[in-house]
Amino acid sequence: MAGNTAVTVIGLGEMGAALAGAFLKAGHSTTVWNRTASKADPLVEQGAERAATAAEAAQASPVVIVCLLDYDSVHQVLDPLGDALKGRTVYNLTNGTPEQARETAKWAADLGYDYIDGGIMAVPQIVGTDHAYVLYSGSNTESFERDKPVLSAMGDARFAGTDAGLASLLDLSLLAGMYGMLGGAMQAIAMVRSEGVNAQQFSTELLIPYVTSIAGVVANLARQIDNDEYHVGISAALSMQQVGFRNIVEASRSQGVSSELLDPIQSLMDRRVADGFGNDDFSGVIELLKQNKK
Amino acid sequence: MAGNTAVTVIGLGEMGAALAGAFLKAGHSTTVWNRTASKADPLVEQGAERAATAAEAAQASPVVIVCLLDYDSVHQVLDPLGDALKGRTVYNLTNGTPEQARETAKWAADLGYDYIDGGIMAVPQIVGTDHAYVLYSGSNTESFERDKPVLSAMGDARFAGTDAGLASLLDLSLLAGMYGMLGGAMQAIAMVRSEGVNAQQFSTELLIPYVTSIAGVVANLARQIDNDEYHVGISAALSMQQVGFRNIVEASRSQGVSSELLDPIQSLMDRRVADGFGNDDFSGVIELLKQNKK
Ligand SMILES: NC(=O)c1ccc[n+]([C@@H]2O[C@H](COP(=O)([O-])OP(=O)(O)OC[C@H]3O[C@@H](n4cnc5c(N)ncnc54)[C@H](OP(=O)(O)O)[C@@H]3O)[C@@H](O)[C@H]2O)c1
Ligand SMILES: NC(=O)c1ccc[n+]([C@@H]2O[C@H](COP(=O)([O-])OP(=O)(O)OC[C@H]3O[C@@H](n4cnc5c(N)ncnc54)[C@H](OP(=O)(O)O)[C@@H]3O)[C@@H](O)[C@H]2O)c1
Repeated sequence: MAGNTAVTVIGLGEMGAALAGAFLKAGHSTTVWNRTASKADPLVEQGAERAATAAEAAQASPVVIVCLLDYDSVHQVLDPLGDALKGRTVYNLTNGTPEQARETAKWAADLGYDYIDGGIMAVPQIVGTDHAYVLYSGSNTESFERDKPVLSAMGDARFAGTDAGLASLLDLSLLAGMYGMLGGAMQAIAMVRSEGVNAQQFSTELLIPYVTSIAGVVANLARQIDNDEYHVGISAALSMQQVGFRNIVEASRSQGVSSELLDPIQSLMDRRVADGFGNDDFSGVIELLKQNKK
Repeated sequence: MAGNTAVTVIGLGEMGAALAGAFLKAGHSTTVWNRTASKADPLVEQGAERAATAAEAAQASPVVIVCLLDYDSVHQVLDPLGDALKGRTVYNLTNGTPEQARETAKWAADLGYDYIDGGIMAVPQIVGTDHAYVLYSGSNTESFERDKPVLSAMGDARFAGTDAGLASLLDLSLLAGMYGMLGGAMQAIAMVRSEGVNAQQFSTELLIPYVTSIAGVVANLARQIDNDEYHVGISAALSMQQVGFRNIVEASRSQGVSSELLDPIQSLMDRRVADGFGNDDFSGVIELLKQNKK
C-alpha cells in the first residue's frame, strides 16, 4: 500500500471520475478539475480538492492524470498550461493512436516535463478493483517507478516499454481482439436466431464456454508466429479448415444471414492456400496481414 | 454408466477412430468398417469387430455411428445399403450444412430408418473426455433417449431439437464464433508484432485473459437481441465505440497491418449509426446481419 501522495485528475467524465474516486478511496490527496465544473461536486463531497483552473490543478500535485475525450481535447487543455507542468509527470490515459501518443510525448519533452502514455484496460465500474489494469509506456521510466504505488490505486500498473506509443498499440490491439470475438459472436447469434433459438441460452450454455475454452489455442498460434513456422499442431491443416469454413458461409447465407463478417476470413484462407500453404496452420494467414497484401 | 451395448462405427478417419476407441474404452461391443480396411487394425487389436462390408457393419448393431469426410461420402456409403439400415438408428456425425442434414433425414425417413444428425464439439484428442460434447438433432427423439447412455461414451450427449438441421447449425455457428475470435487474435498479434512485441507473451499475459474476461459480455448482448432492445448496459454507446474503433483501424494501417478483418465491423457500426441507432449498444449491428442488407 502507498502512503498519502498528492495526485491530480484532469477530466471527470465517466472514466476520469472513476479514477479520481479510486485515488480518494486509496487515501491519496486528490485534486480534480473538469471543464464542466459541476462534475467535480460528488468527488468534492468525498474529500477531493476542487481546482479553479487546469493550471491550478497541474500545480497541485507532482502526479497529473489526464483523462479526456480525445487528443484534441488533451491539447486544448494542456497546451495553454506551459510552465505549470514543469516538474510534473503527466500520465495521459486518454484513448488515441500510437502516433498521437508519440507526438504528445515529443511535445512534452520539448516543454521539459515528464510524460507517460497509458491505456486503461477496464470499464469505469471496475476501476480500482483487482480486475482492472493500466498499460503504461514512455521514456520517463524513473517517474513511472516512483509513481507506481500511487498509480496502482486505479488498477495494476503495467509498464510496456519506453516507446510512448506502445501502451496505445497494445490497448488498441486488445480491443481489435475483443471486436473480433464480439463480431464472431454476433455472426453466431444471427445464425442460430434464424431458427428461433434463444440467443441468451445459446450464449451461456454453448458459445461463451466454447470460445473461452478455445482461446488458449491462441498461445500455440502465437508461438508459431514468433517462430515464422506455421506447422500444424493440434488443429487441422488450413486446407481442411477451408472446406469446413465453406460450410459456415453456405449455412449462413442459406439461413438469410449476411456473410460479410465471414468473407474476409475466408478470403485470407483461400489466398493462403492458393499461395501453397494449405498444409500449414491457420496462423499462417498473418503473413497476408503483415505484408499488407490485399 | 451404460451397460454393454452393441454399436457400429462407419468411417475410421482421425475422428471416427477416436469415436470407436471411446466406445471400446467404455466397454461396448464395437463393430467397425472403413473404406480403407487397414485403418481398422489398431481398433481390432483393442477388441473391435471388423465388418467386411458397410452392410455387414450396419446389420451388426442397432446404433450406427457414421463419421465420414462429407455428405457426398455419406451418400456413397449409405445409399447402396438400402434395407440393411431398417430398424437401425443412424447417428451421422459427419460435418455438413443444415440443408444437407435435413435432406439426409428426409431420405432416411423415406427408407424407413431412424436418423439423428450430430456435430462433434471436440478434436479427436479429447473425444471421450469430460471436455467433449456432441450436439444432436432430429425427429427420432425416442431413439436418442434410448441410445443416450451409449452415445455418452463419445462425450456429453446434448439434444438440440427435432429439426435435423439444428445440430449442424449450432455447430457451424459455434465455429463462426471461434473464427471471429481467432481472426481478432490474428489482427491483434499482427499489430503488436509490427513493433517487435513477442506474440506468445502478449497472448498469454494480455490477449487471452482479456478476451476470456470479456466473453461474458456476450450474454448481455444476447439478452438484448432476444428482446430486440439494444439499450446500452455496461458498455458504451455505439457512436462512442465507433470513434474508438477508428483509432484501431488507423493504428493498424499506420503500422503497416492490413485492416481487412476490421473493415466489415467498422462498416456495420457506421451503417448502424447512420441508420440513427448511435445511442444503442453494439448488439444492434445484428439487425444488419439478419436482414441481409449489404
Ligand atoms: N468509459 C470507458 O469505458 C473507457 C474505457 C477505457 C478508456 N476510456 C477512455 O477514457 C477517456 C475518457 O472517457 P470517458 O468515458 O470518461 O468519456 P466522457 O464521459 O465522454 O468524458 C469526456 C471528458 O472529456 C472532457 N472534454 C471533452 N472535450 C473537451 C475539451 N475540448 N476541453 C476540455 N475537456 C473536454 C469532458 O468534459 P465536460 O464534462 O466538460 O464535457 C469530460 O470530462 C476516453 O479517451 C475513453 O476512450 C474510456
Ligand atoms: N478432425 C477433427 O478435429 C474433427 C472435429 C469435428 C468434426 N470433424 C468431422 O468428422 C468428419 C471426419 O473427419 P476426420 O478428421 O476423421 O477426417 P479424415 O481423417 O480425413 O477421415 C475421412 C474419412 O472419410 C472416409 N471417406 C472419405 N471419402 C469416402 C468415400 N467416398 N467413401 C467412403 N469413405 C470415404 C475416409 O476413408 P478412407 O480411410 O478410406 O480414406 C476416412 O474414414 C468430418 O466431417 C469432419 O469435419 C472432425
